[in-house]
Amino acid sequence: MGVVVPVEKGPSEAEASLNDLVALVADGMARVNTTILSRTGSEVAMIPEVANHLISSGGKRLRPILTLACADLCGYAGGEGAVKLAASVEFMHTATLLHDDVVDESDMRRGRIAARIKWGNEASVLVGDFLLGQAFRMMVEVGSLKALDILSAAATVIAEGEVMQLTAAKNTETTEEDYLAVIRGKTAELFAAACEVGPVLAERPQDEQDACRAYGMNLGIAFQLIDDALDYGGTSDALGKNVGDDFREGKITLPIVLAFRHGSEAERAFWRRTLQDGEIREGDLEEARAILHRRGVLAETVERARQYGALAREALAPFAPGRTKDALLEAIDFCIARAH
Amino acid sequence: MGVVVPVEKGPSEAEASLNDLVALVADGMARVNTTILSRTGSEVAMIPEVANHLISSGGKRLRPILTLACADLCGYAGGEGAVKLAASVEFMHTATLLHDDVVDESDMRRGRIAARIKWGNEASVLVGDFLLGQAFRMMVEVGSLKALDILSAAATVIAEGEVMQLTAAKNTETTEEDYLAVIRGKTAELFAAACEVGPVLAERPQDEQDACRAYGMNLGIAFQLIDDALDYGGTSDALGKNVGDDFREGKITLPIVLAFRHGSEAERAFWRRTLQDGEIREGDLEEARAILHRRGVLAETVERARQYGALAREALAPFAPGRTKDALLEAIDFCIARAH
Repeated sequence: MGVVVPVEKGPSEAEASLNDLVALVADGMARVNTTILSRTGSEVAMIPEVANHLISSGGKRLRPILTLACADLCGYAGGEGAVKLAASVEFMHTATLLHDDVVDESDMRRGRIAARIKWGNEASVLVGDFLLGQAFRMMVEVGSLKALDILSAAATVIAEGEVMQLTAAKNTETTEEDYLAVIRGKTAELFAAACEVGPVLAERPQDEQDACRAYGMNLGIAFQLIDDALDYGGTSDALGKNVGDDFREGKITLPIVLAFRHGSEAERAFWRRTLQDGEIREGDLEEARAILHRRGVLAETVERARQYGALAREALAPFAPGRTKDALLEAIDFCIARAH
Repeated sequence: MGVVVPVEKGPSEAEASLNDLVALVADGMARVNTTILSRTGSEVAMIPEVANHLISSGGKRLRPILTLACADLCGYAGGEGAVKLAASVEFMHTATLLHDDVVDESDMRRGRIAARIKWGNEASVLVGDFLLGQAFRMMVEVGSLKALDILSAAATVIAEGEVMQLTAAKNTETTEEDYLAVIRGKTAELFAAACEVGPVLAERPQDEQDACRAYGMNLGIAFQLIDDALDYGGTSDALGKNVGDDFREGKITLPIVLAFRHGSEAERAFWRRTLQDGEIREGDLEEARAILHRRGVLAETVERARQYGALAREALAPFAPGRTKDALLEAIDFCIARAH
């Protein structure tokens, strides 16, 4: 099945790509990639094996790119600090993915078999811990207590978001507010922290830190909302994991929150049976997708993502126009355009 | 079954207790306990629930006690720094236990049902991550980059030790050297770091930092060796987990390394079947204990622990005599006396 989220592209989304942003930080990212490779090294052979299985599977590395770009936006001179913090951010992300696979009992990640299937839950947990430790070591080397404060706080907020998600899982009564608290923690907080440390390194005033943080936070929310829509409306290729994983795991995401709210009694009974009681039968995923389309909630989810995208755009208003700012703005459109 | 590790007490072990050490740092530990309680707090109710299940189960809190005592030994004035680092160390330990339970698929921990049985693997992983994040936040508040460096490096070394243990698991050809590398990482490194940050806070010279680190490292090795002996020779009460857990998990510990080395061909076949192939039958644990006693390897393991205890004792030689030093020396004897 092809691309099925039934929404029109916004005018700025039509041609949006990450190309400009990627080109802008290409030198820095080459150093980030070298750093990532060298810091996954260990005499314990299983560690680089497991870490590189995930790292080499080619995520977009959006978070470290954002760190470098926000540092650049704030006139950072381009030392090793931003490179190390960017690598730290990517390690924190990778550690979260490894731990998430155990939590979600996932079989697939970034289009590959999940590490936990290949090496076991225990390796996923421990290699995640190793990468988290390495992330903190690099932050310490950079020596900015403010950046350490932001990223260590992010680590706890991410874990809180994930635990919140556990609690909300299978609960079809989850409100939109509850759901937003979950994704602010589990996804958007790391985007926010990744952006915020840029101006911190550049030693820019608090209002620029706040602006970059707000950009990252809103971009992160938009990004997650699109992911949630793609889980029901996209293809496995676009998603890098199995379509319908959220459904099979009983994960309550915004499309479900909205569908439950708008739904008929029969539909609610369907959601309760499948997501709450975990009683999923042949054809239920197709039925779920049909309901979501009928109720227009995938388009509604993308529309919410656009609203957060607009907030991210607004957050950058204080910064003077320029190539970096333009590229960061285009990244918003790109994240939303993934839904098409 | 009572106490069965067949070794004589050393003269100094006869009356050894932690009482002096505990009394010495009682004020500080009261503040550590308050800090621990307040820092497990979260709006996400499941977090304090899971964290406190383990934290309130009353471990000895040996590691934070060591941080306070080593700071005291080095003339630290007694500010909030040591309290926060001590609480960080305990959080790192608790996070490790939560993750270990998932890795080992344990049912019991500190005499209680393991958190992962009550709340699931996912909660154990995520609450461990939360505590690790909180540990780093407290370290950042203390503001010592040197202490942050020591503890973040410890986090990676611990994970490396645990992964090494995974690799060594079920491999009866594991050498004593391989085994020592495992326990240096998974256990002794945190003891070493807990001790080392004391003189760092007190801003004492490198040689005192090295001395405290060496004390902690050797004490940690001795501690783990006794634990390994108790797993075959102690009682569940003394151990806080099920006797024979290591055996059932195919964990290769020093008693096994020695027994395999000294063993007859029939005994080696027994170890291969039970530990390597995981084919454990009724009565095998009793048989394992009988072999270990016959080969005298539990006594040999305790003897090795005494040697590391002697190294820990020697490490403190540079420090002037006094109540704190005496109490730290007695702690060595206490750790070894657990085997009786």
